[in-house]
Amino acid sequence: MQEVSEKRYIDIPEEVREAYRLYRPTPLVRARRLEKALKTPAKIYYKYEGVSPTGSHKPNTAIPQAYYAMREGVARLTTETGAGQWGSALSFAGMLYGLDIEVYMVRISYEQKPYRKVMMRLFGADVYSSPTTRTEVGRRILAEHPDTPGSLGIAISEAVEQCLKDENTKYSLGSVLNSVLMHQTVNGQESIKQLAKVDEYPDTVIGCVGGGSNFAGGAYPFLSEKLRGRAEKDTEFIAVESTACPSLSKGEFLYDHGDTGRITPLMKMFTLGHDFIPDPIHAGGLRYHGMAPSLSMLVKHRIIEPRAYNQVEALGAAVTFAQQEGLIPAPETAHAIKAMIDEALRCKESGEEKTILVLMSGHGHFDMSAYEGYLNESLQPFELPQKRINETVSNLKRLYPFA
Amino acid sequence: MQEVSEKRYIDIPEEVREAYRLYRPTPLVRARRLEKALKTPAKIYYKYEGVSPTGSHKPNTAIPQAYYAMREGVARLTTETGAGQWGSALSFAGMLYGLDIEVYMVRISYEQKPYRKVMMRLFGADVYSSPTTRTEVGRRILAEHPDTPGSLGIAISEAVEQCLKDENTKYSLGSVLNSVLMHQTVNGQESIKQLAKVDEYPDTVIGCVGGGSNFAGGAYPFLSEKLRGRAEKDTEFIAVESTACPSLSKGEFLYDHGDTGRITPLMKMFTLGHDFIPDPIHAGGLRYHGMAPSLSMLVKHRIIEPRAYNQVEALGAAVTFAQQEGLIPAPETAHAIKAMIDEALRCKESGEEKTILVLMSGHGHFDMSAYEGYLNESLQPFELPQKRINETVSNLKRLYPFA
Repeated sequence: MQEVSEKRYIDIPEEVREAYRLYRPTPLVRARRLEKALKTPAKIYYKYEGVSPTGSHKPNTAIPQAYYAMREGVARLTTETGAGQWGSALSFAGMLYGLDIEVYMVRISYEQKPYRKVMMRLFGADVYSSPTTRTEVGRRILAEHPDTPGSLGIAISEAVEQCLKDENTKYSLGSVLNSVLMHQTVNGQESIKQLAKVDEYPDTVIGCVGGGSNFAGGAYPFLSEKLRGRAEKDTEFIAVESTACPSLSKGEFLYDHGDTGRITPLMKMFTLGHDFIPDPIHAGGLRYHGMAPSLSMLVKHRIIEPRAYNQVEALGAAVTFAQQEGLIPAPETAHAIKAMIDEALRCKESGEEKTILVLMSGHGHFDMSAYEGYLNESLQPFELPQKRINETVSNLKRLYPFA
Repeated sequence: MQEVSEKRYIDIPEEVREAYRLYRPTPLVRARRLEKALKTPAKIYYKYEGVSPTGSHKPNTAIPQAYYAMREGVARLTTETGAGQWGSALSFAGMLYGLDIEVYMVRISYEQKPYRKVMMRLFGADVYSSPTTRTEVGRRILAEHPDTPGSLGIAISEAVEQCLKDENTKYSLGSVLNSVLMHQTVNGQESIKQLAKVDEYPDTVIGCVGGGSNFAGGAYPFLSEKLRGRAEKDTEFIAVESTACPSLSKGEFLYDHGDTGRITPLMKMFTLGHDFIPDPIHAGGLRYHGMAPSLSMLVKHRIIEPRAYNQVEALGAAVTFAQQEGLIPAPETAHAIKAMIDEALRCKESGEEKTILVLMSGHGHFDMSAYEGYLNESLQPFELPQKRINETVSNLKRLYPFA
């Protein structure tokens, strides 16, 4: 019902607020050392979700999803995970409310991030490397592409297929959906209050986008102020994706499935096509072929600006950030930091004293192999050639010519 | 000069306070979910140092040490590290003040915790697996015991030897010394203020001890209140060590060296003998043969109670904590958590509504292999046989019969 609700606000249940108190409110911090190092007149604030139990913004929706499932008598939730952030978050939330959690983890991340598995098991979940031989869609894909690095689209298909086999099992999704984006707005609502305490309002809000929930959660409350004419500033919004998976910058605005196996309903969104398999970048959370429909619509109407960076430049920016501020960002977050530093340097040239808010979606403690690759100069940037996009998008258009 | 100062308080320089602001004050949190799960009438508070740039209390002393070194024109600091916590902290602090940092990391931790190396390199340090062939003491030990897991004592000898080779290089130690313990008291001083805000004062303060700086930093300010007759309660202090390295519980109070190579001055302390090599437990920070002299003296006078747990029971307690509070403790911290849970359960039996403060020295994000071992039931407890202690302590007594 939350997915299709027309209400402007939906109350957070007291039980969920109580669980949020384990880590919320998350800190909003001014990056003074970074400002000084960049010699920028801009003021840089970061909202840091890395203090959550699993190190990212994901518990903000995992907790209410598990709570509502428990209330409805559900016994088990299945889900997919890319970098492992969402899978850990749902494992944690499931444990809070006594649910069994079954996680399909994208193969490349399963191999690159072994300790995410340990965390999920510590919180009581079962974790599988996707594609698996447990599902029909997994077996089919393994037969065709035995060496596939996997993708979020495939893992979603598997989790949904498993859920359909048992009546007491539901499927849980960590991004893209309206309800998920709405749960995440607790983040932006906190930021508005925290910034008001120091008499600030952002000129620019920057966040990374995979499925869109981190960005929407941090940015929509500010966007709502702007669109309702209540904001004191004409805030700009920058959604940062990976050049390896540039759905907003290079995809097309079409009806498509949320998963590779075409089990989910069609959604109108920017997409690279549901059978697009991104290169194995470290930012597993940015490897999604589509994008939240509401966010896609806002980009289509040029209310949000999309931007893409490759992982080498993103991790370089993250190292600069870590060396100044002492926090090691997740590879996904690194992409937002690259955009933030570019904006701060632009302010240095123009002399503008802008207030920049960057959404720090998580820490990189389980992604140190990405930094190892960066320091050893062994990382590939992965810039996606237009040809590969044309292929998967053409397939989609052939399949659904009406879209 | 701070090492031998007789002043009760030494001011924190403004530049150090500024760097502290990157992560201090650290949170003091009531563990309400854990209290409920244990059905204890005790109130449990934890002071969480895991929010620091490197995930432990260590930057509290790394930052002032690097700052004073920079002020004195030092170009390079050498140091040892066990679990990697101290090495990361000094790498971070060195970067803040433009110093070169050279870290000798105990071999077993170097192998068990590969990503700690990446963190140190990210902060610009050089890291070596100790014993190395770079030093005389390292080469000698490798010749005798090529398969040694290493120890803090050996790594200290190497770092000190390297420092003596160059006049612009100083050696930096992360625990044991009076000055280091004093730097750490910023932690306990904050706790007193934070507890006062909610009108609380601890009946029991619990922390883990390797060299003693975490425990002393959190506990000495409360102990000072007690010994000066200013405390409202007769607070108990429990110092928790590993059964694999029980210097306080099973060692002797003797003059000994701080390092295996016998380069440091002698200190009167509880020790297992400077040539004692602990078994390779995951809590690398608890693998030290000696103990801070002031802490040793307080244990000798029964003002602080020592207690030892093995790593299997400690990690089990940490899993319980993580499942209730959402934070994954460092393996060192896990030992304090085991003692805290035991105390809370004792309160349940006795009905006492004690206020317990546990010092959460750090997170376990870089120690997930310990939890993997725990979940797979492949961890050894490592209870040290009396025979091995007798051997190394007898060696010490033969060497220094006067002590």
